[in-house]
Amino acid sequence: MAAEIVNPRSDSDTGQDSGAEPLDSFDPAFALHRGGKMAVQATVPIRDKDDLSLAYTPGVAKVCSAIAEQPELVHDYTWKSSVVAVVTDGTAVLGLGDIGPEASLPVMEGKAILFKQFGGVDAVPIALDCTDVDEIVETVVRLAPSFGGVNLEDISAPRCFEIEKRLQERLDIPIFHDDQHGTAVVTLAALRNAARLSGREIGQLRAVISGAGAAGVAIAKMLVEAGIGDVALADRKGVISTDRADLTDVKREVASFTNKAGLTGSLEDALAGADVFIGVSGGTVAEEAVASMAEGAFVFAMANPNPEVHPDVAHKYAAVVATGRSDFPNQINNVLAFPGIFAGALQVRASRITEGMKIAAAEALASVVGDDLAADYVIPSPFDERVAPAVTAAVAAAARAEGVARR
Amino acid sequence: MAAEIVNPRSDSDTGQDSGAEPLDSFDPAFALHRGGKMAVQATVPIRDKDDLSLAYTPGVAKVCSAIAEQPELVHDYTWKSSVVAVVTDGTAVLGLGDIGPEASLPVMEGKAILFKQFGGVDAVPIALDCTDVDEIVETVVRLAPSFGGVNLEDISAPRCFEIEKRLQERLDIPIFHDDQHGTAVVTLAALRNAARLSGREIGQLRAVISGAGAAGVAIAKMLVEAGIGDVALADRKGVISTDRADLTDVKREVASFTNKAGLTGSLEDALAGADVFIGVSGGTVAEEAVASMAEGAFVFAMANPNPEVHPDVAHKYAAVVATGRSDFPNQINNVLAFPGIFAGALQVRASRITEGMKIAAAEALASVVGDDLAADYVIPSPFDERVAPAVTAAVAAAARAEGVARR
Repeated sequence: MAAEIVNPRSDSDTGQDSGAEPLDSFDPAFALHRGGKMAVQATVPIRDKDDLSLAYTPGVAKVCSAIAEQPELVHDYTWKSSVVAVVTDGTAVLGLGDIGPEASLPVMEGKAILFKQFGGVDAVPIALDCTDVDEIVETVVRLAPSFGGVNLEDISAPRCFEIEKRLQERLDIPIFHDDQHGTAVVTLAALRNAARLSGREIGQLRAVISGAGAAGVAIAKMLVEAGIGDVALADRKGVISTDRADLTDVKREVASFTNKAGLTGSLEDALAGADVFIGVSGGTVAEEAVASMAEGAFVFAMANPNPEVHPDVAHKYAAVVATGRSDFPNQINNVLAFPGIFAGALQVRASRITEGMKIAAAEALASVVGDDLAADYVIPSPFDERVAPAVTAAVAAAARAEGVARR
Repeated sequence: MAAEIVNPRSDSDTGQDSGAEPLDSFDPAFALHRGGKMAVQATVPIRDKDDLSLAYTPGVAKVCSAIAEQPELVHDYTWKSSVVAVVTDGTAVLGLGDIGPEASLPVMEGKAILFKQFGGVDAVPIALDCTDVDEIVETVVRLAPSFGGVNLEDISAPRCFEIEKRLQERLDIPIFHDDQHGTAVVTLAALRNAARLSGREIGQLRAVISGAGAAGVAIAKMLVEAGIGDVALADRKGVISTDRADLTDVKREVASFTNKAGLTGSLEDALAGADVFIGVSGGTVAEEAVASMAEGAFVFAMANPNPEVHPDVAHKYAAVVATGRSDFPNQINNVLAFPGIFAGALQVRASRITEGMKIAAAEALASVVGDDLAADYVIPSPFDERVAPAVTAAVAAAARAEGVARR
């Protein structure tokens, strides 16, 4: 799956940098990033004028004319069907916050090469110099002819919800905010396997999510979709319930379909007797609160780099512990989901990514673990080569089943 | 210079096309275009979780933070400095006209791979679903953080002039409408060599340009900049002069700095006694008009696929004949210019592409011919490997000399 690695810029750039050098330029992360992490390559030869006359004028004119007459041919005769725009406005980059479009580019390039490495999907970083919802929506709509899909990335809540919704209404290509749905898919996969390990059904479980941003809201929706017994979210002011008068539109909607138990109070209050903790907040949770959870609880403390509960502490009380870190078992990593989800959607030219496709992705991801299921192995490694093909096939099949496939 | 050629989509796409197949799908141009002509590749390895933690989280965060603090580092640590957006609205594609953004993509991909093949420049096709000048300008401004330069392509006149001008005012990266300036640079190079061959100075020559669109206007400006004796343009209504009441703003400006002789009447009238004919119109010129040109004339009949004057006819009267076609000598092909112009501009992080940089590109291109100069060799072949390095070096040096280089 991996292409040959070359860096056409590494030679010419030596010693010709900006002069404005970071103090730790010998840090391996800086060394690796010099000149960027990606390149474009031709997939057809241009060796002589015959090649040139096919790939460019005059030969290309026939292909253009054919697409002008039969627009769907654009999928067959350009790279549209294999290329995704990774779009950000730089407002919610990793844990760094609103660092702007240029500073977000290393993350977007990273995302792009993960698309390629794990899903065989071409991806192009598009970091936008605007943060207004209308402007972002209009810009992406204007760009859309060139791309087979759009992966929204690191756009702050609540704007991310409206941007995604409006783009889905305007465009007939997959629009997917990975910070929401990628995280939700991988979380659901891990939760399914944790439930299987302990012989319980999802419907028997009560979950509490710390964090009501992009990831928390999407996880809540997906757990409800998957039939969770009950789920409550908590933001910095406590549990989200219909009783609260201080809710944003998005949180009011969240209150309407979560927290059937009508919990109020703090996150810690809600954890008493809960079966599942899901942390996507970056805050911390006191050990006593973890201790108050139900017997055989699952603790998914996914904040990076500092989990809400340290895994060593969580293990004292919980049956299954997962984090967002690669140096502990059970890493909840979006790269398990987004490459296969887009690869599957693009393969069948899906017009959108439905809830059913996301659920199918989670099930496929969970199934890769198979008989090796264990408390320290409820989710596969990002480097497990079975993952992307399984997710791709499941998503493509689900798209066909749901009637959004176009081939 | 050429990267290894792979087509990751050629297998999986076999037999899974849209069903809406063009009749001539076994045409070699369609066969070559299947699945598109380009791909993205990683230039750094992602073999294991250590690689992942450098190229993506958590390692990438340090690089993002450094750029947030010192914005110019974006050029050192992302692919920004090596990637150009090839932007079109699909309104003036080849000779096909306004075929829309999707149908223009094969040309934009072709352009992108020529950038890579001949200049080592990464390029991304961006075909926009809007044609309003304000909307195009705003969209490109919002995209700009992700790119080191913008190549405008196949945008119809007169909008192309205003779009380029406004983008140059708004952005501090090179903005270059290739249909204008690429054509002008290569034409000037050929004209310089034709003049040298016949022992004349550019200042002694009177030129007539057929076509007052993007290419014609840009060639006229460049010839004046280069010191041409006189140059007149003709549109479909005849020679452009300050006497005409039907001129657009752009043509009125053209009239102000061309046609010092005050010619009026038809293109054919203007050709009587002229030293140079430059055709960028797609029309035809009668043999008698060519016969009426001065002794030892130069005929550059660049319309594709049908030159304004067939080369066999032109040779009866002219000392030097050039066309836009690869199957005759002296092909005026933009690929001789744009890859090296952008490579040179990006190499020194030029904030713009100045007139001086374009003149330097033309001189470098002309100089590659050297002592081999002959009537059928006034311009090098696109596959002459000396071309791009010569243009690149000349453009970079000119950018430094003109104070627009940033490193």
